[in-house]
Amino acid sequence: MSDTTHTPVDPVALTQQLVRCPSVTPEEGGALVLLERLLTDAGFACTRIDRGGVSNLFARWGSRNARTLGFNGHTDVVPVGDADAWTVDPFGAEIRDGYLYGRGATDMKSGVAAWVAAAIDFVADAPADASLVITITGDEEGDATDGTTAILDWMAEAGETMDDCIVGEPTSPNDMGEMMKIGRRGSMTAYFTARGVQGHSAYPHRALNPVPALARLIADLAAHELDNGTDHFDASTLAVTTFDTGNPATNVIPAECRATVNIRFNDAHSSSDLIRWLNTEAARVGKATGVDIEMTATVSGESFVTPPGPLSDLVATAVEAETGRRPEASTSGGTSDARFVKVICPVVEFGLVGKTMHQVDERVKVDQIGQLKTIYSRLIRDYFA
Amino acid sequence: MSDTTHTPVDPVALTQQLVRCPSVTPEEGGALVLLERLLTDAGFACTRIDRGGVSNLFARWGSRNARTLGFNGHTDVVPVGDADAWTVDPFGAEIRDGYLYGRGATDMKSGVAAWVAAAIDFVADAPADASLVITITGDEEGDATDGTTAILDWMAEAGETMDDCIVGEPTSPNDMGEMMKIGRRGSMTAYFTARGVQGHSAYPHRALNPVPALARLIADLAAHELDNGTDHFDASTLAVTTFDTGNPATNVIPAECRATVNIRFNDAHSSSDLIRWLNTEAARVGKATGVDIEMTATVSGESFVTPPGPLSDLVATAVEAETGRRPEASTSGGTSDARFVKVICPVVEFGLVGKTMHQVDERVKVDQIGQLKTIYSRLIRDYFA
Repeated sequence: MSDTTHTPVDPVALTQQLVRCPSVTPEEGGALVLLERLLTDAGFACTRIDRGGVSNLFARWGSRNARTLGFNGHTDVVPVGDADAWTVDPFGAEIRDGYLYGRGATDMKSGVAAWVAAAIDFVADAPADASLVITITGDEEGDATDGTTAILDWMAEAGETMDDCIVGEPTSPNDMGEMMKIGRRGSMTAYFTARGVQGHSAYPHRALNPVPALARLIADLAAHELDNGTDHFDASTLAVTTFDTGNPATNVIPAECRATVNIRFNDAHSSSDLIRWLNTEAARVGKATGVDIEMTATVSGESFVTPPGPLSDLVATAVEAETGRRPEASTSGGTSDARFVKVICPVVEFGLVGKTMHQVDERVKVDQIGQLKTIYSRLIRDYFA
Repeated sequence: MSDTTHTPVDPVALTQQLVRCPSVTPEEGGALVLLERLLTDAGFACTRIDRGGVSNLFARWGSRNARTLGFNGHTDVVPVGDADAWTVDPFGAEIRDGYLYGRGATDMKSGVAAWVAAAIDFVADAPADASLVITITGDEEGDATDGTTAILDWMAEAGETMDDCIVGEPTSPNDMGEMMKIGRRGSMTAYFTARGVQGHSAYPHRALNPVPALARLIADLAAHELDNGTDHFDASTLAVTTFDTGNPATNVIPAECRATVNIRFNDAHSSSDLIRWLNTEAARVGKATGVDIEMTATVSGESFVTPPGPLSDLVATAVEAETGRRPEASTSGGTSDARFVKVICPVVEFGLVGKTMHQVDERVKVDQIGQLKTIYSRLIRDYFA
């Protein structure tokens, strides 16, 4: 790598270049091609890992035998949504009044740009026993089946690993530096179908109405307190997301109705325990009413946590040094690809303010992109110090 | 009326003629024109009462000052439905294996034909102090806003009335003569809309989910016993007919959901009492949950009954004489235009077997049309005896 020369990367300019790549999941949009060129120029060994129509990038600097700090991020973005409601071109990366606007400006092209800029700085003058791995996926906002998972599968085959990993997702609700994430709750969705016997509204005794039975089950599930929270987690939550019948006739008792329940659960539960509980509840109501209630479930991920320790201390110290604020170690929020990374090493998430993510006029404070790069630089230096 | 000559009418042939008139609500289809000609020829004074695109017929024989027996029926029919599923032409009035097939064969062109044939027989040799009124509507299967109601409005203005009335709807579930109807339960439909605050499934405490609240209300309403039945009525019933949200996103807590409840109520309730109860229940659940639950209601009709007495005895005696079976005095079933007639006089419903009404291959036993005419003839004679 002695034949590479160090050209510092401006993280704001790189964010702009990335925002201008229309990489709506699963489109690569030029974003990974851009990063691959940049990292290759800086001395990283890059491998494109493409699977199931999704593009991903793996980049290593330094020896596999050295201690390795990893990074995980994504360049895919959610769709623009109501394009007419945007006050700017969603892929224009316009800077206005101190904000950089565009789809992915916050979630998370700026986070990727800040890390890449910090990493390129670092490897220009790195100690010999340091190594960095950067994994960038194009399938975080989609099904996530061929994204980080594909990279980790490839790494296992290739004998690649990381000792610790930072995920660069936006983590602060309002102010820069206020929160890092050391884990996430698990997430699962249960789909109930209740089946009775159709009939005329005037003769309910000749029918078997599935709606009150499912309503009873849903009301009972929603009223149940799963737990009060655990050491590192808020209380688990259950949200009924829909209840549908689709019967327009007021003189007809319907034969079938459906409801969906989404559960975000902490480390007091596993998805299999919860599925057992849901099935027991469905059977109880089914037995009491005679209505057949069937359930299927999809599990997005189990809960995971990297308990407070060296990695979270490292992040907190770097953040505090640059912002004057020691970030809270939280496990709140939805899922992220940290759930996949957690399987191979400790992982902590730290990034920008997520307020406008997925929204119209998504934007990020320009100053904070530079600040994030500085935090990442300090964090990488401290890791290998 | 001395200038009319008596030509007996074959009720089976008249049913066939009526079935061949494609009088799907609100189409007149030639059915009322046919009846008007026939009744006029037999000496009835006919008035067409057309309102709101619907045709209706009023016919009187005899003096307004005489005791008047009324009849109410309809010639409109429900749509054919799945035409390919019929084994005959729905408007062909084909006779096969002792059955007359066609839309309206049972509900209720045969009932109209039997009464008209009986009435024409009767007036050929009627006592001087007898009078008959026949009211036929073309809007019983539709909204019923411009049908029997229009006739009754016209009668009030014209100073016309009836002392008692027979409605010729099919009344027996399976066997000829087993049931007459002396009343009907009331019917009303309540539409609930529950409104909360939309949010992310991962943060239910920042949202206000209307689904569990409405599910609780619906389950409670369905579990409530309205009554155990009254002297002449079965127990009131409440049927939840639909519950809908329409939220396809499992990570979104919806802002709104809706449910519909249909109540068939006996004389222990009025619609206004029930509306008050439903509003109280909605307010109770709303208060407990913070969800705003709004209700609107439509009332199809209050319950009504002609308590067992002279009119039902007259019908039962005539039916028993012709069939050997004394009909049960029931208040079961959906609504009929008897609910309108009841306002001006006692009313009893008696007609054919309703088994195939509104179905594909609607049909009636040919023999039973003649039997019904004989029952009606006896009933009219006995009324004026």
